[in-house]
Amino acid sequence: MTATVRTRVAIVGAGPAGLLLSHLLAGSGIESIVIDQRSREEIETTIRAGILEQGTVEVLASSGASDRVLTAAHRHEGIELRFAGDGHRIDFAALVDRAVYLYPQHEALKDLITARLAAGQDLRFGVTAQRVEGAETDRPAVIATDADGQALTIEAEFVVGADGSRSVARAAVSGSRNGYFREYPFAWFGILCEAPPSAEELIYSNSPDGFALISQRSDTVQRMYFQCDPEVDPDSFSQEQLWDELQKRVPGTTLKEGPIFQRDVLRFRSFVAHELLKGRVALIGDAAHTVPPTGAKGMNLAVADVLVLEKALRALLLEDDHRLLEAFPETALHRIWKAQHFSWWMTSMLHVAPEASDFDRLRQLGELRSVVESEAGRRFLAEAYTGWPLEGLQ
Amino acid sequence: MTATVRTRVAIVGAGPAGLLLSHLLAGSGIESIVIDQRSREEIETTIRAGILEQGTVEVLASSGASDRVLTAAHRHEGIELRFAGDGHRIDFAALVDRAVYLYPQHEALKDLITARLAAGQDLRFGVTAQRVEGAETDRPAVIATDADGQALTIEAEFVVGADGSRSVARAAVSGSRNGYFREYPFAWFGILCEAPPSAEELIYSNSPDGFALISQRSDTVQRMYFQCDPEVDPDSFSQEQLWDELQKRVPGTTLKEGPIFQRDVLRFRSFVAHELLKGRVALIGDAAHTVPPTGAKGMNLAVADVLVLEKALRALLLEDDHRLLEAFPETALHRIWKAQHFSWWMTSMLHVAPEASDFDRLRQLGELRSVVESEAGRRFLAEAYTGWPLEGLQ
Repeated sequence: MTATVRTRVAIVGAGPAGLLLSHLLAGSGIESIVIDQRSREEIETTIRAGILEQGTVEVLASSGASDRVLTAAHRHEGIELRFAGDGHRIDFAALVDRAVYLYPQHEALKDLITARLAAGQDLRFGVTAQRVEGAETDRPAVIATDADGQALTIEAEFVVGADGSRSVARAAVSGSRNGYFREYPFAWFGILCEAPPSAEELIYSNSPDGFALISQRSDTVQRMYFQCDPEVDPDSFSQEQLWDELQKRVPGTTLKEGPIFQRDVLRFRSFVAHELLKGRVALIGDAAHTVPPTGAKGMNLAVADVLVLEKALRALLLEDDHRLLEAFPETALHRIWKAQHFSWWMTSMLHVAPEASDFDRLRQLGELRSVVESEAGRRFLAEAYTGWPLEGLQ
Repeated sequence: MTATVRTRVAIVGAGPAGLLLSHLLAGSGIESIVIDQRSREEIETTIRAGILEQGTVEVLASSGASDRVLTAAHRHEGIELRFAGDGHRIDFAALVDRAVYLYPQHEALKDLITARLAAGQDLRFGVTAQRVEGAETDRPAVIATDADGQALTIEAEFVVGADGSRSVARAAVSGSRNGYFREYPFAWFGILCEAPPSAEELIYSNSPDGFALISQRSDTVQRMYFQCDPEVDPDSFSQEQLWDELQKRVPGTTLKEGPIFQRDVLRFRSFVAHELLKGRVALIGDAAHTVPPTGAKGMNLAVADVLVLEKALRALLLEDDHRLLEAFPETALHRIWKAQHFSWWMTSMLHVAPEASDFDRLRQLGELRSVVESEAGRRFLAEAYTGWPLEGLQ
């Protein structure tokens, strides 16, 4: 037995991209169905990125997707770049009159899920998309299996793949071609610990022992990362060794230690799908692109995609105007490749590559000095970090 | 028979660094001897770099080293970055209120040689330094062979190695250690041709076929370059093939063609000597560092070295104050590594590396867009290209 349901927009994936898109579409009177193979609990508890651009916060707040973001997020008006023994603040407020907000992605997801369910959104957890069909017809469909193992077909006027880096929808858009890749010869060892903040703002530290990021999460829980071999076993370090690894990378700051209750290794990968649109199927968010975490662009780039696509879907579905949809890939890719560059730049400027020569290392310090000694250099970095203007932001 | 002469400062190398240093020292009443293994004619006719930072022009003019630079140099208030089919001007005058000057290095050398000889400088061509001795004594010496094959010893209070990338003096400073290196997997094919300018300002073009630089030399002679394999035989191209290679890299501009009367292949290399100072021997200019030509920093960096060292030698030789000399390596290296980064950045942003993936190529275009779309990005580039403030510039 196959159940068939109909909707205007079928959205595969209940991450930030899929949920925000359904929210904005609903605001325009366009109904959608959102499915995700994960449970609600899994979505709401998985630790992901935590830095929101000011524009992302404005979108979440002004659209009613999250009220809490305005009260619970921590506003950060700068970051510190630390190298060669000294810290250099990049003062976002002074440089670009903008800020970023520390607000864990799973908190934003809780807000979005709450808002969507309260509004009566058809949002189905535990539903696994098998494939997307009919991209080049007027009735594309998502072929799925629901939480009980029953076949489910969602027929729609448009299908959106917002189903993350292992996207099922991507095959309907890019075919057997996958995308543009870059691997990195290092990863991040991330920890969560019970301790108060060691610093008020994020510290990005380039040290001879490798990169470290001293981040914050709440008044009692902290998130920190250090550069590691991608093949490292997270359980091979004692707590003491982890603190040693972190501490030696941030000379000048005494880290506040506490029990480490979560540890993970984040692989670094840059990826952009070959195609973002085929007929009536589009890709957004991690289904369309992955960035290394150094530039904090992942979720923000997903939000930018959503704004461009939502405007295009409004024109298509409310006015039968295809022009914005046709322009969607080029419009979205313009920002995506700038963000890919920024993420690569922050990564390569701050990490010590295993194969780096002494020349590479000294050039890197020359680069960091060039940036921090120049108002233009600091502002160029601040513009990207706090986020370029968003297309179609209200 | 060994002839022995005495002087205060023995300078090995009559390039821009050595000649300008002798000029500035003479202005402070410090006599020197300059030797070079090349003939005056060879020095005055070898085609080298042609872009002077504003500060370099100011030093040459205000010190009396060159009057012609103020009248004969062409002031350039911008460059064009061309990629993905469009040109983007970096407007130096508007961004940083500075400019660069097109003035071939051999013209600056003619001016310097004329000025030094007119002032009675002991300047000896065809004299080959064999080695530098006594770095850690108060009487270091240059052991040389003069134009007639006679042994010559120059005893001095200080020896300066300004003898280019194949420096003989370097061994006395860095010992058997050489320096920090980086090779590049491409070179520049440079031509000189009889033709009027194809563009008013320099065009740095990143094209799918590789980099090209459309430069100028005079109203009737033009200098152009295109990215090539470092192993290419310069004589393997017909004139028609050379124009084809150049023209396809600058779509949108019709190059003005004319007889190509010189062709050369410029290898790309980044180099910084391990040590710039040992006792009473210092290295400046290409003896201390080599940069790839993309950032036009070679001669300008030599002038910056000279200003720092000349001030230190004044303190040492007129006031017996060693402090500035002790600080010379760190002071000079600060700028050198920034310039190394800038030269690497311009090189890697504008060339198509043979091993570049599609991801690398699209990221590079994202980088170029990020720079040209941001006033801060353009200004960051303009600051470096026109030259950071010079130490001790009058």
